[in-house]
Amino acid sequence: MTNLEEWLNRHLLELNLTDEMDYENGFTRLSYTEEEKQAHQAFSRIAENLGLDVHSDQAGNVWADWKTDTEAPVVALGSHVDTVSSGGGYDGVAGVLTALAAIKLLKDEDYTPHKNISVICFASEESARFGVSTIGSKAVSGLLDKDDLADVEDVEGVTIKEAVESFGLSWDTIDQAEKGEKELESFLELHIEQGTQIENNGADIGIVRGVACPIRLQITAEGMANHTGTTPMHRRSDAFAAIAPLITFVEEQANQMNEEQDVPLVATVSTVQLHPNVMNVIPGQVELGIDIRSVDDTLKKELADRIESFCRKIEDKRKIQVHLNTLVNNDSVFLDPNLQGKLAQVADQLHLNSLEMDSGAGHDVMNMAEKWPSGLLFIPCEEGISHHPKEYAPKADLAIGARVMAEYLKVETGEKP
Amino acid sequence: MTNLEEWLNRHLLELNLTDEMDYENGFTRLSYTEEEKQAHQAFSRIAENLGLDVHSDQAGNVWADWKTDTEAPVVALGSHVDTVSSGGGYDGVAGVLTALAAIKLLKDEDYTPHKNISVICFASEESARFGVSTIGSKAVSGLLDKDDLADVEDVEGVTIKEAVESFGLSWDTIDQAEKGEKELESFLELHIEQGTQIENNGADIGIVRGVACPIRLQITAEGMANHTGTTPMHRRSDAFAAIAPLITFVEEQANQMNEEQDVPLVATVSTVQLHPNVMNVIPGQVELGIDIRSVDDTLKKELADRIESFCRKIEDKRKIQVHLNTLVNNDSVFLDPNLQGKLAQVADQLHLNSLEMDSGAGHDVMNMAEKWPSGLLFIPCEEGISHHPKEYAPKADLAIGARVMAEYLKVETGEKP
Repeated sequence: MTNLEEWLNRHLLELNLTDEMDYENGFTRLSYTEEEKQAHQAFSRIAENLGLDVHSDQAGNVWADWKTDTEAPVVALGSHVDTVSSGGGYDGVAGVLTALAAIKLLKDEDYTPHKNISVICFASEESARFGVSTIGSKAVSGLLDKDDLADVEDVEGVTIKEAVESFGLSWDTIDQAEKGEKELESFLELHIEQGTQIENNGADIGIVRGVACPIRLQITAEGMANHTGTTPMHRRSDAFAAIAPLITFVEEQANQMNEEQDVPLVATVSTVQLHPNVMNVIPGQVELGIDIRSVDDTLKKELADRIESFCRKIEDKRKIQVHLNTLVNNDSVFLDPNLQGKLAQVADQLHLNSLEMDSGAGHDVMNMAEKWPSGLLFIPCEEGISHHPKEYAPKADLAIGARVMAEYLKVETGEKP
Repeated sequence: MTNLEEWLNRHLLELNLTDEMDYENGFTRLSYTEEEKQAHQAFSRIAENLGLDVHSDQAGNVWADWKTDTEAPVVALGSHVDTVSSGGGYDGVAGVLTALAAIKLLKDEDYTPHKNISVICFASEESARFGVSTIGSKAVSGLLDKDDLADVEDVEGVTIKEAVESFGLSWDTIDQAEKGEKELESFLELHIEQGTQIENNGADIGIVRGVACPIRLQITAEGMANHTGTTPMHRRSDAFAAIAPLITFVEEQANQMNEEQDVPLVATVSTVQLHPNVMNVIPGQVELGIDIRSVDDTLKKELADRIESFCRKIEDKRKIQVHLNTLVNNDSVFLDPNLQGKLAQVADQLHLNSLEMDSGAGHDVMNMAEKWPSGLLFIPCEEGISHHPKEYAPKADLAIGARVMAEYLKVETGEKP
């Protein structure tokens, strides 16, 4: 390992609050939990050791500032350290780790930037706990709808508001984490790709143009619960048997649309709740969650429409009611071409092959891009596996990411004379 | 309402620990919980008011004894008072209620039986909590496999052993609830039909010949969890999309077998667990629970075989593994023809139309029938709805059940000279 890789490895473990990365159950640091807080504290320790000024904002985001001139603009980098349940140790962590490593590289060179630099460790990026993602970066960019969210609950009935307050924050002031347009000049996030396009194209890094935001549907099928042993087949209204063909339909339609179109689309029936979900009762109610993504928003809409028509057909054919609820419908986000140009130029200088690509996953940068010129840099992760204990990014790729970020910071800030 | 109906209504409410029967969420008294215990206490109060001797056994079954001659045999009646989640107030309760009402009718007539009578309120009949049914009657009839069951957990990780002990019993002695063959002479259970055969045939009551015991399968499909946004359709191994056609297959095959055969069969995919079951992760693992019933055991086996073949085809076609686990495979139970004859004779005397029929649901009587001559009497329930808040049996039918049981007791015990 090079010195840089050794530094990355050590702090990768520290940010994951672990002595080794290879755990069968992966890492679980859900939004606004004690586990996320501990990872924030690890971030703060590393940043302080690099000589950065560390403070938290009203949404629980941790800011590590390198201030060289109070009059100068602020160039920001950042990502998050929370995870899904049994997730990996690189999703989010890779971004804050390489951003800190970029600072270290500049300091090791005695480079003093002409602008101020902030590394942001955003709170609560993953939607795993509350079904709501990127809470911290929404707050910073002024996109947090406090009234809409306060009562959203996790599976244990804890509301976001309660979680935020037990995290040591005040729900009333969470939106004060918002920064004015002038308070930042630009934002860059590094993230693991969570796919295999970089590898498939023989590239070293990915420079992202567009982020595909999802349409998320909740489908509720209402039949009639009854005893499995005493209800003849012809007298049932089994909500699960009735809605099951929709699971197949979503996959088939997504496959078909990928054959017909150049812009990729993905669609997944990713959640199910059965009521009452016991062995001797016919399912009376089923809730399915469907996640549809493409950078082409018309494709997403087209599939959502086909799903709705299919649900109506099921309703007509079977003794059940089907309700559709659109949980999320966000247009895709396109990143700053200027910033993409700078990243491509830096990659060239470092003799790296960079791939212009789109992101199928949402990231904190989506929110930041609504207010500031923003960029997203991908490094490969093994076999594209993510949100899984086997998620893995080689140290060499983390090191490449750190070097690209360091060179980008030089371009963006200029050296102080 | 007649006096008997009024008595039944009052004690129906008491056994359900309620002031009215019509609750949107029904009744929830899971196995070995405080709620089941409270219903047992209500049973005890009613029995004591009838002058019966009440005691609990080592499995938590409550026995209400009418002892008239310590040398005479014991004729037993009984059912249970636990429920599924959000179940009805008649499944189980109707049986203990009408048994107690039968005693009341005999006492009102100053009838003193020549044999002893016991009304048993069995513990933990429903499988809703632990996936294991009829625990109390298994213990009485010596069918409880203590070692096999001790570690079975409910959804909250509480084992049966822990639940039994927090119910105030000792797991070590639970099997001492077993009665010797000579300790009982016969057993009769009354239950709501949970179907509509009685009504469809214009009958008043059902006299059951055979009880269809289930084959229960657990199907586990193992794919690969991954990010819904970044994993292209062609690189997925989505366990839910892969196994979904099985849900449709089970229903189709059951329908087809009913067309081909005279003996009815029912099959239900009644449970599902998805892992991780979050919106932005492709399902990596799915567990389906399948319940198959018919009094013709070869039909059940045939469908289980077809399901296995179908799973193998899915495995061949898709990038997933499918494991089959047979949770339950019990042969159907046939009840005592002699006792059925007595019930038919009593029904005739009371000018009731009785229907000889089979039961699609399992009941405590299944276990009792392994050791003692046993019978099962059905009363209608509205639209066959059961295991549901809308479960309902008219007071008039409860009264008919009580009268049949009282007359049956006279036949079975003879009046003391």
